[in-house]
Amino acid sequence: MSIESLIRAIPDFPLPGILFRDITPLLKDARGFRAAIDLFVDRYKGRDIGHVVGIEARGYMLGAPLAYGIGAGFIPVRKPGKLPYSKLSESYALEYGTNSLEIHADALGDGDRVIVIDDLLATGGTAAATRRLLERLGATIESFAFLIELEALKGRDALPDVEVVSFIKY
Amino acid sequence: MSIESLIRAIPDFPLPGILFRDITPLLKDARGFRAAIDLFVDRYKGRDIGHVVGIEARGYMLGAPLAYGIGAGFIPVRKPGKLPYSKLSESYALEYGTNSLEIHADALGDGDRVIVIDDLLATGGTAAATRRLLERLGATIESFAFLIELEALKGRDALPDVEVVSFIKY
Repeated sequence: MSIESLIRAIPDFPLPGILFRDITPLLKDARGFRAAIDLFVDRYKGRDIGHVVGIEARGYMLGAPLAYGIGAGFIPVRKPGKLPYSKLSESYALEYGTNSLEIHADALGDGDRVIVIDDLLATGGTAAATRRLLERLGATIESFAFLIELEALKGRDALPDVEVVSFIKY
Repeated sequence: MSIESLIRAIPDFPLPGILFRDITPLLKDARGFRAAIDLFVDRYKGRDIGHVVGIEARGYMLGAPLAYGIGAGFIPVRKPGKLPYSKLSESYALEYGTNSLEIHADALGDGDRVIVIDDLLATGGTAAATRRLLERLGATIESFAFLIELEALKGRDALPDVEVVSFIKY
């Protein structure tokens, strides 16, 4: 069973010229979904990781089962206005303008060791903004984890001096 | 370890007069998170369920680990504009105006048996819209699953003739 064969390429989404990598066929396939999550679980189990941080929203679909699988807690990094409690915010650049991500101020503290997960590494803008949020809280990032990496966009360059793991590269 | 003690009440979010039930302290607590997911896993394992359908976005944080735990596939029901492929849409009422939810047209078909999960049952509007989406696809809803139920809002009345499970009632 090939995980890669369950990822669908959709032209011109969300904008003209972008080839979107759609993981929903993988998620809905019970064996494929388990195999994808187990890639992450097998990679990270046994390491000293207290929490998995997922980036909204596909990062939740992979990160919450990963947290469950390795016995960690789960922390959502969210789009603006979604978190109800005291929070921190960091901006990142879009093709036009900026957006931001938020995390609860009490989500993590000094000494916490975390994985950050999302479905796809493109330019690394959201991952780098998440890193800034976590460093402001004093947490240590053990690894960034992505199912897919678009290597031409050089997202790793936005994440220096930290482990970056991906399983499917285009 | 009490799951209920890890759910935080936040007054006046997202609107004045609403007491928001914040599950992020539960999610970030590794033992609490595992215990919460295992409530669902223990309830549904061994039943003939092919897919777990999660409602954006907290439904993903509970539904994806549930799918992983019982060996099912995972299907996201999303806010408008997020899904890249051919899709169906259903509207539901808000306090002012309406919103809608979408599902991929090829997510499910005749004979598929699913659980629908979200963190909280309030008026049942989003759950009922999700039910309409699933019925249009020919799927059968084995159960609705919620961590929390706000009983005064009578959300069960919006979900007749189907099993509705919740674990914490206010």
